[in-house]
Amino acid sequence: MTEPELLVAAKDLDAADPLADFQDLFLEAEGVLSYLDGNSLGRPLRATAEHLQEFVREQWGSRLIRGWDESWLELPQRIGDALGAAALGAAAGQCIVADSTTVLLYKLARAAVAARPERTEIVLDADNFPTDRYVMEGIARECGLTLRWVPAQYDGGVTAEAVADAVGPQTALAVFSHVAYRSGYLADAEAVTRVVHAAGGLVLWDLCHSAGAVPAQLDAWNVDYAVGCSYKYLNGGPGAPAWAYVASRHQQDFAQPIQGWLGSADPFGMAQGYSPAPGIRRVVSGTPPVLGMLPMQDMISLIAEAGIDAVRTKSVALTEYALTAADALLAPYGVVVASPRDPARRGSHITIDHPSFRAVTAALWEQGIIPDYRNPSGIRLGLSPLSTSFEETFRGIDAILTQLRS
Amino acid sequence: MTEPELLVAAKDLDAADPLADFQDLFLEAEGVLSYLDGNSLGRPLRATAEHLQEFVREQWGSRLIRGWDESWLELPQRIGDALGAAALGAAAGQCIVADSTTVLLYKLARAAVAARPERTEIVLDADNFPTDRYVMEGIARECGLTLRWVPAQYDGGVTAEAVADAVGPQTALAVFSHVAYRSGYLADAEAVTRVVHAAGGLVLWDLCHSAGAVPAQLDAWNVDYAVGCSYKYLNGGPGAPAWAYVASRHQQDFAQPIQGWLGSADPFGMAQGYSPAPGIRRVVSGTPPVLGMLPMQDMISLIAEAGIDAVRTKSVALTEYALTAADALLAPYGVVVASPRDPARRGSHITIDHPSFRAVTAALWEQGIIPDYRNPSGIRLGLSPLSTSFEETFRGIDAILTQLRS
Repeated sequence: MTEPELLVAAKDLDAADPLADFQDLFLEAEGVLSYLDGNSLGRPLRATAEHLQEFVREQWGSRLIRGWDESWLELPQRIGDALGAAALGAAAGQCIVADSTTVLLYKLARAAVAARPERTEIVLDADNFPTDRYVMEGIARECGLTLRWVPAQYDGGVTAEAVADAVGPQTALAVFSHVAYRSGYLADAEAVTRVVHAAGGLVLWDLCHSAGAVPAQLDAWNVDYAVGCSYKYLNGGPGAPAWAYVASRHQQDFAQPIQGWLGSADPFGMAQGYSPAPGIRRVVSGTPPVLGMLPMQDMISLIAEAGIDAVRTKSVALTEYALTAADALLAPYGVVVASPRDPARRGSHITIDHPSFRAVTAALWEQGIIPDYRNPSGIRLGLSPLSTSFEETFRGIDAILTQLRS
Repeated sequence: MTEPELLVAAKDLDAADPLADFQDLFLEAEGVLSYLDGNSLGRPLRATAEHLQEFVREQWGSRLIRGWDESWLELPQRIGDALGAAALGAAAGQCIVADSTTVLLYKLARAAVAARPERTEIVLDADNFPTDRYVMEGIARECGLTLRWVPAQYDGGVTAEAVADAVGPQTALAVFSHVAYRSGYLADAEAVTRVVHAAGGLVLWDLCHSAGAVPAQLDAWNVDYAVGCSYKYLNGGPGAPAWAYVASRHQQDFAQPIQGWLGSADPFGMAQGYSPAPGIRRVVSGTPPVLGMLPMQDMISLIAEAGIDAVRTKSVALTEYALTAADALLAPYGVVVASPRDPARRGSHITIDHPSFRAVTAALWEQGIIPDYRNPSGIRLGLSPLSTSFEETFRGIDAILTQLRS
């Protein structure tokens, strides 16, 4: 397809998009012509700006300390339940908002290896996100465990076959990303979980790059633990708190390494001796980050309204369109697709490589065309289903073409 | 003094208060007649509501992912430096905003005991805040250490003498609160630090109940580590991120237990193998909670403008007035003061005890008179120097009197 044809196709797809109206719910981004990094930082909803203002005046400013008793203390679980229902396939009482992804990875992985005390290895892959790898290195050192690396597979993701070769009676825990941060490879989480369980290990999934765009079925897949951030497809804002999933069957014995008062059974008893809260609340350590967890609520409601399956359908259509456009316009200039061609194995972003892309990204940002850059030579196009249009996607890829031609 | 005399005295003190104008900078609290819990949750500034709105529209919403490079990544250190200069007596490069108090207590204490590998004890006091005690219990268990409890002293605080009896060649770390959460006892942090150092141990101070109201001199006192929250006298909002101080001399060897990508030397290199950032940034684990750390900036600026010594002068006058009023009006009904009489040993809140106070607090909250309740029978009057007036303090104590009479 030619440039004009691709533009027409984009307009047609937008016209037929049943979720197109959702785009108007996001705040206008001044000077931005194409935002293709919703998988790093989702855009704010108009409602979010208003809700924050309201919260400061009516809740923090007027209910003051009473707000904790009235609603704030329950917020981490309430939002967790809403997220679990809207996007994660998790029944109530298993998800909670807290800390950062890094801190939750630490807490959940520590609890997991404590639940498999005789085993000696944590299994992960070298293409996993840096923080996942770094946290596990630290835990391995402090707990006297060994890391076993699954070799990088097809498109930077892990397959059940590769994991089957790595796990065994020594496996305490396996830690993988549901969608790989660079390639966008979508793991078969159910099959991988089954393989780890067959070896007697536990599994911790990182859903940072999938939650809110790619449906998960944490309960049905029999997942043990999961974490994710809220500032990508959950539009929680820069550095918003993360969320954790701990399957009901593991909560009773969840060994919390960071024992804080708000994860204790009776915080305001202020008694001697830590006694963990029942249920998912024992994952909490410090005071819940109320202000920071407000924005994600608006996006979770929107995902529930649209339906996560409809969101996924649009996500696949967006990445499919982006691949078509990249093949047609950019491949002739030597651009190589680094993401899976099979939509069933692809998340909501694609990465394309070219030696010039570091400089190209800098030039695009100046023009208000905003993809992300990933080492060593990748432009990552993050397509957030509820805020991204096909025409915007065209505009971004067309701007890359202009750079390559210049 | 009688009720009318105390009211006149309050009005006179307000009229003579050089910091009185600062009160207008806080958002009006609808339906609240007296807010005496600024030591649990500080009130929002008018500027904060506006700045949050601006941030969502102009920064998050328009700069989008570019905001990280442009300013957000530096925010934890920039705010830390501002706080260190305004209120903590800490030179630049030693304070950083991150996580929650609980998580920072964990990280700093783990790093401290790793720096004293041959020693076997953590020293703390039973009146320390629950989260401090619970975190240290957990660390003691995981690191094979013993907790040594300093017996509760005068007004629930720790004295240098009591600490001297507890520390010795076995002491790895001592963990105390600068101001005790219940009694308001203000420890002699310099003397206590000297005693711990003389035994070869390290010291971690919790400044949650002092930072922003009671000046600290962390550098001059030779403190090793400190933490504090930002939602009390720093008015950061419910669950706002905490801050950590790590003295320059300990940064090079700071052993981070929660190794995250944003505390690594080159986060966007995304390389294999964690390599810690130089300086205070290695205290960071996950993505900085940008939205949550915005509000405290406004209050830190205000404290810098007023001057922490002027803030302290007003704080002492407020607690002195509250004690006078409690003695005159409430003591006849059996109310007992649980806080130090010596202003040099008192923070910015006082606690008074009476068997009826649980019920009294509930009744007061209904009327928009808002102190805090602390087990087993305490009303805690938190007097936030820049937002609290003497008349407001009178009104609160007078309302307690009305309850006791009824």
